[in-house]
Amino acid sequence: MQTLELKAPYLQKRNKLVIVCSKGSLDMAYPPLMLATSGAAMGMEVHLYFTFWGINMLRKDTVQSLKVSPVGNPAMPMPNILGMIPGMTRLATRMMKGKMDKMKMPTIQEMIKTAHDAGVHFHACSPSMQIMNLSKDDLIPEVDDIIGATTYLDLASEDAITLFI
Amino acid sequence: MQTLELKAPYLQKRNKLVIVCSKGSLDMAYPPLMLATSGAAMGMEVHLYFTFWGINMLRKDTVQSLKVSPVGNPAMPMPNILGMIPGMTRLATRMMKGKMDKMKMPTIQEMIKTAHDAGVHFHACSPSMQIMNLSKDDLIPEVDDIIGATTYLDLASEDAITLFI
Amino acid sequence: MQTLELKAPYLQKRNKLVIVCSKGSLDMAYPPLMLATSGAAMGMEVHLYFTFWGINMLRKDTVQSLKVSPVGNPAMPMPNILGMIPGMTRLATRMMKGKMDKMKMPTIQEMIKTAHDAGVHFHACSPSMQIMNLSKDDLIPEVDDIIGATTYLDLASEDAITLFI
Repeated sequence: MQTLELKAPYLQKRNKLVIVCSKGSLDMAYPPLMLATSGAAMGMEVHLYFTFWGINMLRKDTVQSLKVSPVGNPAMPMPNILGMIPGMTRLATRMMKGKMDKMKMPTIQEMIKTAHDAGVHFHACSPSMQIMNLSKDDLIPEVDDIIGATTYLDLASEDAITLFI
Repeated sequence: MQTLELKAPYLQKRNKLVIVCSKGSLDMAYPPLMLATSGAAMGMEVHLYFTFWGINMLRKDTVQSLKVSPVGNPAMPMPNILGMIPGMTRLATRMMKGKMDKMKMPTIQEMIKTAHDAGVHFHACSPSMQIMNLSKDDLIPEVDDIIGATTYLDLASEDAITLFI
Repeated sequence: MQTLELKAPYLQKRNKLVIVCSKGSLDMAYPPLMLATSGAAMGMEVHLYFTFWGINMLRKDTVQSLKVSPVGNPAMPMPNILGMIPGMTRLATRMMKGKMDKMKMPTIQEMIKTAHDAGVHFHACSPSMQIMNLSKDDLIPEVDDIIGATTYLDLASEDAITLFI
């Protein structure tokens, strides 16, 4: 009798990570970059697809000034009325940046560079670019290309870990 | 010697997209609908599961009046103190709608209709309906059914691209 | 002629659910716990990975006082200017808690206990713990361990349903 041993590729772990980055705030810029860098270090193929407010992470004129909002986030230990005072967004942002700095956490720009050097792919969403009236020249050099939802879905469909942040 | 050629369905691309829609703001209403429409056009089976604030996208009385908040979103180029002024939510919303209009972007209602006509399935979350004290009559006609978390997870478990928006 | 019947594990449904919990507000604390409990009841292996503001769901000193923000959420039927009035976050939170109570919905703490008893795994993100200057003693007893992004990605790569909330 013949015995057939089948290698089972479907039991292999997925080695692809495809994340939609839709937020333009400092606190929600860290998670996709941290996951992307970790994934790349594990040998995964990693794609970040920036859409809507997420485009701000790729704009030359905004990537350095991403902010944390002190209002509308009940997890922040600050009453909304205080968060309204002019300068409070700056204060909350400086506090978070200070903490990150003290922990020797890299800035968003540094993390983008590290991720890019590790092979993470940076894709900007084309309809978002149109709405914001931007061209590729407005984006940081780490951006690989400008793609639409169809290309994103194609990447996601190849057995990737998918997240929308 | 016998050679066995195996067709490898596990290497096929996933052709199912299952998105949880949990936000009730205008800006976060677009991404799931754009992805759903693109997915359907690619021949994917697409399911949208509306829960929590996302139910507002399905309510007859709110779908036309989804708003963008000018506060609590540091990606918006407006200081919180200005966003507080009565009428500013309306202004921010009108600005976004104006931009969408200029780009010939369809409204949320139009996108829902297009997605539905393309075969996208619309599911409302039953516990959310109960909390909001709503019945199926309160929802737009494109809603297919009211389902619970178990049915959603069952859909998601069939090798779908899964996202929580 | 020989007929070969292959059992097809790759056509089986996925039975693993891995959710990132990144929000610290009351409204966004419910969805992951409801999905986790439903998944566990269906026999799924469920992992919750708490990061950033999500750590507040695990802190002894904050889990009882998660709040809903009345500002920055245009789905809330309250103008931003009203939401600014001191006490309004408390009011919005009390309203939501009242509704949950009336529907006999368990509190977040009760849901965490139920999920834990059903076998759901609770993981705290180590960099987030460092940023917040917390140790395991600051966390509720249901927390299994403190893990990093690599361990999370490893869990997610085992053909899990993945969500970022």
